[in-house]
Amino acid sequence: MWLHLWKHAELKRASCREGIYVSHINLHKHSLSSFAHHSSYLDLPLPNQSHLSNSSYPTMPHLRLIRPGRNTPKKYRQAKPPMKILISPSGFKESLGPSEVATCIENGIRRVLPNAAIRKVPLVDGGEGTAMTLTEHTEGELIHLEVTGPVGQKVKSYYGFLGGQSQRTAIVEMAAAAGLHMVPRNARDPTKTTTYGVGELIADALNKGAERVLIGCGDSGTSDGGAGLLQALGARLLDKEGNELPTPANGTTLTKLASMDLTTVHPRLHDIVLEVACNWQNVLLGPNGVARVYGPQKGASPEQVDLLESALDNLATVAHQRLGYEVGMLPGSGASGGMGAGLILLGAHIRPRYEAIMEWFGINDLFEDCQLVFTAEGGIDFQTPNGKIPSDVANRAKAFGIPVIALAGTVGQGADVNYQAGIDAFTSILQAPTTLDKAIAEAERLVTDAAESTMRMVMVGLSLGMGYESIATPKTPSSALSFRDFPISPIAQIS
Amino acid sequence: MWLHLWKHAELKRASCREGIYVSHINLHKHSLSSFAHHSSYLDLPLPNQSHLSNSSYPTMPHLRLIRPGRNTPKKYRQAKPPMKILISPSGFKESLGPSEVATCIENGIRRVLPNAAIRKVPLVDGGEGTAMTLTEHTEGELIHLEVTGPVGQKVKSYYGFLGGQSQRTAIVEMAAAAGLHMVPRNARDPTKTTTYGVGELIADALNKGAERVLIGCGDSGTSDGGAGLLQALGARLLDKEGNELPTPANGTTLTKLASMDLTTVHPRLHDIVLEVACNWQNVLLGPNGVARVYGPQKGASPEQVDLLESALDNLATVAHQRLGYEVGMLPGSGASGGMGAGLILLGAHIRPRYEAIMEWFGINDLFEDCQLVFTAEGGIDFQTPNGKIPSDVANRAKAFGIPVIALAGTVGQGADVNYQAGIDAFTSILQAPTTLDKAIAEAERLVTDAAESTMRMVMVGLSLGMGYESIATPKTPSSALSFRDFPISPIAQIS
Repeated sequence: MWLHLWKHAELKRASCREGIYVSHINLHKHSLSSFAHHSSYLDLPLPNQSHLSNSSYPTMPHLRLIRPGRNTPKKYRQAKPPMKILISPSGFKESLGPSEVATCIENGIRRVLPNAAIRKVPLVDGGEGTAMTLTEHTEGELIHLEVTGPVGQKVKSYYGFLGGQSQRTAIVEMAAAAGLHMVPRNARDPTKTTTYGVGELIADALNKGAERVLIGCGDSGTSDGGAGLLQALGARLLDKEGNELPTPANGTTLTKLASMDLTTVHPRLHDIVLEVACNWQNVLLGPNGVARVYGPQKGASPEQVDLLESALDNLATVAHQRLGYEVGMLPGSGASGGMGAGLILLGAHIRPRYEAIMEWFGINDLFEDCQLVFTAEGGIDFQTPNGKIPSDVANRAKAFGIPVIALAGTVGQGADVNYQAGIDAFTSILQAPTTLDKAIAEAERLVTDAAESTMRMVMVGLSLGMGYESIATPKTPSSALSFRDFPISPIAQIS
Repeated sequence: MWLHLWKHAELKRASCREGIYVSHINLHKHSLSSFAHHSSYLDLPLPNQSHLSNSSYPTMPHLRLIRPGRNTPKKYRQAKPPMKILISPSGFKESLGPSEVATCIENGIRRVLPNAAIRKVPLVDGGEGTAMTLTEHTEGELIHLEVTGPVGQKVKSYYGFLGGQSQRTAIVEMAAAAGLHMVPRNARDPTKTTTYGVGELIADALNKGAERVLIGCGDSGTSDGGAGLLQALGARLLDKEGNELPTPANGTTLTKLASMDLTTVHPRLHDIVLEVACNWQNVLLGPNGVARVYGPQKGASPEQVDLLESALDNLATVAHQRLGYEVGMLPGSGASGGMGAGLILLGAHIRPRYEAIMEWFGINDLFEDCQLVFTAEGGIDFQTPNGKIPSDVANRAKAFGIPVIALAGTVGQGADVNYQAGIDAFTSILQAPTTLDKAIAEAERLVTDAAESTMRMVMVGLSLGMGYESIATPKTPSSALSFRDFPISPIAQIS
């Protein structure tokens, strides 16, 4: 049989002499098996009907491969599964959601490896897109309803019930009812915005039988310490005369808070698990607190920052009275403009966002059967290793020794620290000098093209490994012929 | 010996169980040899003093490799040479010269593979940078002198004598004496510019004993049909009254040309080989001619285009009288604003630019001992396959089956045709939304970073091939132990 193959090889000599690269020449027992295994990597189905095939790799013509046929010994004929790729991107802010990014990356990869075994696990950080993505991922159900928006107007909002859970679990994304994007630019006064709508979402979930409510923080447009949310869930916020604060409460009204009556809250709140996924770094008070750090980002003037600091200090005092401990510096107390503190008053479990959210994606299981990971984020820079999605994905992948490639809208200052943080390679999706707005408008095409380009570079590397391997461990073929018998140039042997 | 290795493997079991990736576990005869060979690819010297080493790959920590030690059988200990990479970029117009681009790419690659065997062959197309690059590449000598610039002013210019040639060979780049960049923006009137300085460069080369003169066309700012060049070399351009045209001649004065006296040209012109490297597509006259296609690019108004067309038609008529054949549609006759036609009158050989120039770089020899090619150009788009440097490099590399990766300042419309033209992967060097000017100012850093990123992706692919190979052809190790005996997760075996 091997002799037979070698005769084929001999037939190809002429073209090789003429400088045409013919990997066929390298046929011997070892390299054939090697090629056979690799050909599945190159996404070529292994046809049984043809003994030798000249078909080139569809889009990378220099990767000409031998495929084993029906005369190939059984152990070499066994088709390996195609390359297993996990796509776990974040969304690109103001552009593509995480699911859209994942689909673009998949499309780009499939231009190179049409049959790759791809799993998409679009990731979210608790902010915009969290409820949608998590509900879709678990094949759950989105609930649409009208609630009070951050500036008091009625807005269309939604939350989700996760699919396939033993407990009826709701995912409430605060940004879907009180996100910064819902605050008109000319109304960006964080002393006036409220989380009332978030409370309405939770109340609806409770009314529909939720046994567990996961609240995603991030991208908030509010700084009311969760006062509005507490009201919407039935709490009575009182001033020093015992009068209820106006509904919906906001940062300004919170300055009058003197005490709180929680006996009137939604009765089901006592039966359920309330979980908050938030940035663990955000605290309620002080120089790193809500007012000082996020107030200006949400449009607060210096005076408004002072007002908010005093309002939230008020809330912390009331909380101290009720709980017996200080909440102002608790991790996550400052999440979503202090809504974390309000939720602590309701007995919620505050959890770091990726830990709380990623367990729903079962991402650790995915790494157990995967060979390459793609991740993505709008921007990659020196801050990425501080808990951004690409670095979290990389950390997890590295525990399994899996290479990670990140695509970014923008590669920013000091981005090379990510090479030490487990991201093996990253690239910007941009193709030409352009504005941010134009890049956002073209993001879909750019992400897809970048994924293709990246996958092509990976395949170039794979082909180097293959070629190298095919001469690295030369074994004497069964027949007396050796590839040294053929007058081919060194490069034809190597590549 | 192998048993000994396996004992080491056993010692590592604990860490593997804890989810830490330890490639050590995969030790068996085959994979060790495979790793040994690959480790040279990964640019790790193979130390003899340590039996097993934990040293990680310096910048890609998940690539933990086994290295063979003094107990390793000799045939597995042999170090393979490091990866052989050819860097053959074009320059980035108005930004980096081809040599600078090559150095940036080298620096980027060396961040990943410090010991890679890199050869740099910066390429030029006859235009800006040609004389400098070719002279440097052959370790020749640059001659600096003052000549007449394109608008008649005195300018500093240069040409080169190539090193290591049996014939004394000069390289004259027309853009160094009459390039568009030497025409002030407010003086861009192609009816007034002259190639007189180019003639002066050639005359100087002849005076210094040149036996062969290669003239690079491209990036010209003139449309004088080489009239100025002819004058500088001693030709007498006469009007119908037999009076000499004013010196230096230009497009406007050429309208008065009636005849030409070449008996007075530099005497050494008869002894030497005059060669022109130009775009084969450029013809002197007609709708695809100098005036109609390039006139407007050089700043001509519609009236000036008509004037130039009639001036060059004049030249063609005189040439016809002298040569007995029509030059107006000859390939290359329109090169550098019709300077090709002027040179034809002097008996020059007109050659396609890459053919004429690349033979000096010996680029075909380089492909015979190389595994990966990097090329680059300012822009890559649907026109690139029409004879631009990256596609020419790719064509040559493909004849040897070598993968080619291209870096580009800008990836333009329809760039994916290049995947069919032999470029396996390309990417833009850009990292963030920006202006062309800013990108140009940062080009050095951007090219270096892009080369690193690209090389990292290639290495990811190579690592996939390695890992796959290490289980693709499992052989029973000499000892009775098999890697199946270890309770490790599938991924730990694969990656």
